[in-house]
Amino acid sequence: MKKINPSIPKGTRDFGPDEMIKREYIFSILKNIFSKYGFQNIETPTIENLDVLKGNYGEEGDKLLYSILNSGDFLKNQKLLDSNTNYKDLKSNIANKGLRYDLTVPLARYVSMNRNNISFPFKRYQIQKVWRADKPQKGRYREFCQCDIDYVGTDSLLCEIEIINIINSIFNQLGYNNYTFKLNNRKILAGISESLDIKNRFNELCISIDKIDKIGNIGFEKELSNQNFNKKTINYLIEIFQYEGTNLEKLDFIEKKIKKSKLGLEGIEDLREIINLIGENDEKLEIDFALARGLAYYTSSIFEIISTKTNTGSLAGGGRYDNLTEIFGLKDMSGIGISFGIERIYNLLEEQKLFPKKLTQPLRVLVTNLNNDVTKFSMNIADQLREKNISTEMYIKCSKLKKQLQFANNRKIPFVVIIGDEEKNMKKVTIKEMDSGNQKLVEINELLNILNLK
Amino acid sequence: MKKINPSIPKGTRDFGPDEMIKREYIFSILKNIFSKYGFQNIETPTIENLDVLKGNYGEEGDKLLYSILNSGDFLKNQKLLDSNTNYKDLKSNIANKGLRYDLTVPLARYVSMNRNNISFPFKRYQIQKVWRADKPQKGRYREFCQCDIDYVGTDSLLCEIEIINIINSIFNQLGYNNYTFKLNNRKILAGISESLDIKNRFNELCISIDKIDKIGNIGFEKELSNQNFNKKTINYLIEIFQYEGTNLEKLDFIEKKIKKSKLGLEGIEDLREIINLIGENDEKLEIDFALARGLAYYTSSIFEIISTKTNTGSLAGGGRYDNLTEIFGLKDMSGIGISFGIERIYNLLEEQKLFPKKLTQPLRVLVTNLNNDVTKFSMNIADQLREKNISTEMYIKCSKLKKQLQFANNRKIPFVVIIGDEEKNMKKVTIKEMDSGNQKLVEINELLNILNLK
Repeated sequence: MKKINPSIPKGTRDFGPDEMIKREYIFSILKNIFSKYGFQNIETPTIENLDVLKGNYGEEGDKLLYSILNSGDFLKNQKLLDSNTNYKDLKSNIANKGLRYDLTVPLARYVSMNRNNISFPFKRYQIQKVWRADKPQKGRYREFCQCDIDYVGTDSLLCEIEIINIINSIFNQLGYNNYTFKLNNRKILAGISESLDIKNRFNELCISIDKIDKIGNIGFEKELSNQNFNKKTINYLIEIFQYEGTNLEKLDFIEKKIKKSKLGLEGIEDLREIINLIGENDEKLEIDFALARGLAYYTSSIFEIISTKTNTGSLAGGGRYDNLTEIFGLKDMSGIGISFGIERIYNLLEEQKLFPKKLTQPLRVLVTNLNNDVTKFSMNIADQLREKNISTEMYIKCSKLKKQLQFANNRKIPFVVIIGDEEKNMKKVTIKEMDSGNQKLVEINELLNILNLK
Repeated sequence: MKKINPSIPKGTRDFGPDEMIKREYIFSILKNIFSKYGFQNIETPTIENLDVLKGNYGEEGDKLLYSILNSGDFLKNQKLLDSNTNYKDLKSNIANKGLRYDLTVPLARYVSMNRNNISFPFKRYQIQKVWRADKPQKGRYREFCQCDIDYVGTDSLLCEIEIINIINSIFNQLGYNNYTFKLNNRKILAGISESLDIKNRFNELCISIDKIDKIGNIGFEKELSNQNFNKKTINYLIEIFQYEGTNLEKLDFIEKKIKKSKLGLEGIEDLREIINLIGENDEKLEIDFALARGLAYYTSSIFEIISTKTNTGSLAGGGRYDNLTEIFGLKDMSGIGISFGIERIYNLLEEQKLFPKKLTQPLRVLVTNLNNDVTKFSMNIADQLREKNISTEMYIKCSKLKKQLQFANNRKIPFVVIIGDEEKNMKKVTIKEMDSGNQKLVEINELLNILNLK
């Protein structure tokens, strides 16, 4: 028999029982709230055609796509094969499928394929894994979970309002209150670049703005100057990003700055409307002109949820897009989406000890199995407990009590129901509370009472 | 902009909202019962190293493994490349990862890697997708869901008893009662082949036995004769498979036939013990010597749950194995597992109309959005309903009532809460029941009562 060293690929993880319980806890809160707002769950295949995936994530993103080798003799009819063969050319010939890279492109494909059966606006949520052949490092994985909600087929600003409410509901239920909902509008950024007459360098500018958080104003100044933005532009931008005031004051300030840009004024109007609907005294909502969200497909509102108590960074983020499905031949499908950083939220709850204590302990009782004569009686007790919805493990193999108590200890099971010949003859059981070590001979009914009450 | 025809790879599926709700319904019943019996949930990566996967599924299985191209320049240092290059040789050089093929090998790898942190016996459940590059056909997919439970590190026959109880709980909750729990033991099949002096052809025999269901006794006779089994052997087998009687009678019968085989008698003893513990009058349990379950790694009990009312075939199946983890250097790890055919169970519930009706209707209310003056008030009503745990969609864009009612109709939302200027001024709402068309002006409190009661 061959011997294999058991290992998993770099950047992937096994999730053991304790992690799974915590992950499912997060998912169940999210799913419950999504459903309550009318979002519908969908799942798309792990494997997508590469021509669907490619070209949507920029050149860098395309490089990170995992390709799946065509099955069978993938070299058949490959004429170009010799030692000069370029791997890129060969790749597109021997692999036509790849792994899902995000949940947005699959959503666009799904909507395009099912356009005739969907009632728009289509509100969907999706929680699935994605794969990126990125360099793995602390907190960055090659296989990780994404959780997205999107509104497809509407430009109503009520979406933004609902998203703010959804965020508040979620973090309220998760028990974490230290976050800011940062909001901006790409039209304002476009307006700024129009006013500065650097419209053609808009994407470049957005990428630099996104870095301010990390490199600070001085670093930002340096970066722009390295990119040959002139002094006037740099000072203008720094002034905008340093401006402090209420949300409405910020909007008044920026309006004066970019009043010649029609697009910019539209963005300001959108934000005013949102502030008006939410109420200007909302403490969590913060307009931040230095939020750019580099992804090119955002066209209007953009937002990020930032943890203020920890260094976790962005816990969720998203924005509005005008043309989700155009690439698949379905035009004028605008929408808005938000993606939750499940792995970061998990780490935050862990660090802040916000997972409920009882979570890690779904198994409440171990019923012993001391000898063949009592096995049937013991199994029957275990079944009665399960019927009362008490999670119960029956020790599966007859063995010494000590070993079984040890098992209960290791698995952190709080109660052991001990059944020997004596107990069986009396039709009673001994219940042992593992924490205190106390034990007591009781009737079956009393056992059920004790376990249901505790 | 490039235009792409939106499509998904053959053998894969999107799951829309209605399907997801039904799938999650099945999963929640299974998970709940698994937890109640003390099984723990784990998840393993979609991507596994190919040297972990390969060699476990037979030559045919290995062919069906999906391989993932190594990232970057996978041709670098590939000296063997010319037009004579064999795809198999190249494959092992340019792809070292693949997609999960089943949940058993990942379990074995997981147990081997985590042996020091696991309390044995380890009872785990796992519900994840697997991939096989099989020819897609009706009911057979390339990407599909598996759901397994396993006991690892025990040879106790109580596992079989618990599995029978788990099966009964599950199908009871799913509302389907027309099934048989078919049980056999590979040691008995080994005993038969010993008695016939064809021990060396054991695997071949098992594969033919598995076909009896499809080809019948006559087809089976033909197949064996084509394989040059002699007439005596064929008659002996047919006699065994045709024998009718109670479970205990069957065991007495086979005991006489194979009494010289020590292994065979062990298998008979195991089955007797199981029947003894379950009770010999159990109507669902049926010993069937013609159950072989071709998979080579089963060594003792084997079982299948067969639907008796429909042609669905096997709804679940599994068995006992002696050496789950030996390939990964961990010896003497015996266990037993069962795999649920989620796709078949789904089709069965659909066909037999066993999905609860309310399942497809989680969204109960649409709150209208008739003009900007009532938007805030309408949103507030929607929030109040959600606070009472009533799933509520707010129509996201101001538009005509007719359009909004049409949307409610399409989405099959049973109630629409209509709020115009008049309603807002009176601080009341109009509730419309879509089925009957009846509508009524009510106070907010009354609205909550109506929706909570209905």
